Amino acid sequence: MVTKDEIAEAYRQIQDEICAGLELADGESKFEEEVWTREGGGGGRTRVIQNGNVIEKGGVNFSAVEGDLPENIKKAFGVHENHFFATGVSIVIHPDHPWIPIIHMNIRYFEMSSGSGNDLRWFGGGIDLTPHYVIDEDAHFFHKELKETCDRFNKDFYSKFKRLADDYFFIKHREETRGVGGIFYDRLNPESTGMEWRDIFEFSKAVGRTFLPVYKELIERNRNKSYTSEHKKWQYQRRSRYVEFNLVYDAGTKFGLETNGRIESILMSLPPQANWVYDYKPEPGSEEQKTLSLLKKGINWI
Amino acid sequence: MVTKDEIAEAYRQIQDEICAGLELADGESKFEEEVWTREGGGGGRTRVIQNGNVIEKGGVNFSAVEGDLPENIKKAFGVHENHFFATGVSIVIHPDHPWIPIIHMNIRYFEMSSGSGNDLRWFGGGIDLTPHYVIDEDAHFFHKELKETCDRFNKDFYSKFKRLADDYFFIKHREETRGVGGIFYDRLNPESTGMEWRDIFEFSKAVGRTFLPVYKELIERNRNKSYTSEHKKWQYQRRSRYVEFNLVYDAGTKFGLETNGRIESILMSLPPQANWVYDYKPEPGSEEQKTLSLLKKGINWI
Repeated sequence: MVTKDEIAEAYRQIQDEICAGLELADGESKFEEEVWTREGGGGGRTRVIQNGNVIEKGGVNFSAVEGDLPENIKKAFGVHENHFFATGVSIVIHPDHPWIPIIHMNIRYFEMSSGSGNDLRWFGGGIDLTPHYVIDEDAHFFHKELKETCDRFNKDFYSKFKRLADDYFFIKHREETRGVGGIFYDRLNPESTGMEWRDIFEFSKAVGRTFLPVYKELIERNRNKSYTSEHKKWQYQRRSRYVEFNLVYDAGTKFGLETNGRIESILMSLPPQANWVYDYKPEPGSEEQKTLSLLKKGINWI
Repeated sequence: MVTKDEIAEAYRQIQDEICAGLELADGESKFEEEVWTREGGGGGRTRVIQNGNVIEKGGVNFSAVEGDLPENIKKAFGVHENHFFATGVSIVIHPDHPWIPIIHMNIRYFEMSSGSGNDLRWFGGGIDLTPHYVIDEDAHFFHKELKETCDRFNKDFYSKFKRLADDYFFIKHREETRGVGGIFYDRLNPESTGMEWRDIFEFSKAVGRTFLPVYKELIERNRNKSYTSEHKKWQYQRRSRYVEFNLVYDAGTKFGLETNGRIESILMSLPPQANWVYDYKPEPGSEEQKTLSLLKKGINWI
């Protein structure tokens, strides 16, 4: 059996590895940490990096919280358990360079207990990529790496979780995906996967450890490209769609806002600057138009 | 009896008056209009002004739509009526100058009918002011003008609707009001007010016609003040709170997104540029700090 302390400890370590790796890749800025405790139980380490060489604003958060399950959450889950424990690592990186993509990763473990011994427990998580400009080769590389991680644990995972990501990272009111997708999964446990807890835990850690090499590669591929003020304008526009997704649809953000989470940690995912231009339509045949045409579900990037 | 055509016609005229007045006040930019029709019935005139002398981005929308009432809305209202009609004017203005406040106004009329003759009908609306920097005299003037309009129709309206605005224009997760409030009202009809339909309609028009002189005065009071890049930074920060309110709480925005409204008309309320700085805390004693300290419910501005 995997204990919650063991999971939290592994996640804490993954946070450390990722922060160290991102600081190296950035080469200029350092993460600032805030350690916080939650009134109802537990706490976290919020780490934010701003105005770096590569990263304009990024957050790598770890938390392990527990306490009484709020009534509205019980209702939403349709459960009667009274106590919960949740731990996870959450990342959103907004790069300065418009050709480097925005990236998001989350790995998490959740349990609810009633004291009767019949606990509900599962792992969830995902990684998705939001290029301001979609580059086919980068999207291909990103998905190939995710598939390799998935395949090491279960041959069904990638195609299933890729489809879930297409559905989840979708801006319904714009009828466009947030980016080129990735993987998204939830409620992984022995019943839903046929795997042992230990192997699901290993999968969760493997997802966490896929983030750094993949994003470092995407940074290196694009950081020396030249760009214009038009590219920056488009980046600010695309970031506004990111804001719309996070504030209107993102389940983690909603959960956080409804359970009085630590606001600055929850909303660290929002970009340093976002612009809303009224009814902007890119030129036919432009790179911007090409990107819009690829913000669709169901594209096989591999 | 006031007919829905009469109401729509009056609202259309108010849109015209306001657009003409704002163009004069701006002195540079003109509104661009898009006339649209709604698949299920009705349509509107979206008017947006951008990059003016005074107004960086502003929208003054009129719409009169009707059709089948969507199932989720029936559920939310707890009604069985099948047909609805809604008309209104909606305004959000984001000025370029950080000392000129953001302003919002909405007047609307809504009816639902089942064909049995027992129609549900009401007027709703409101005006609220979101200064980037709260100026006591301006907030006083703004509320005094609103009170005068209210008092002409009903001595209870101002204090009641002022309280409703404090509750409605509230960013719960930040524990701050969107600005210095104003008035907010809904479901006004003869039963709820003891007034005739005709007088409620006159009140609705009077609210619509309070907007222009009040906002013009606030523009004139502030447009020649000097400002620094620090003031602009703060303005972008405050605008990000405006985004948070509109995407997370605003009922009109939610209604629009859920009923597949015209996205660019619904989201024209979002600012041209908004910034999220992580965990920004203004200096004690600064103007920014003073503003934050005044974003509270229950302040008597008169």
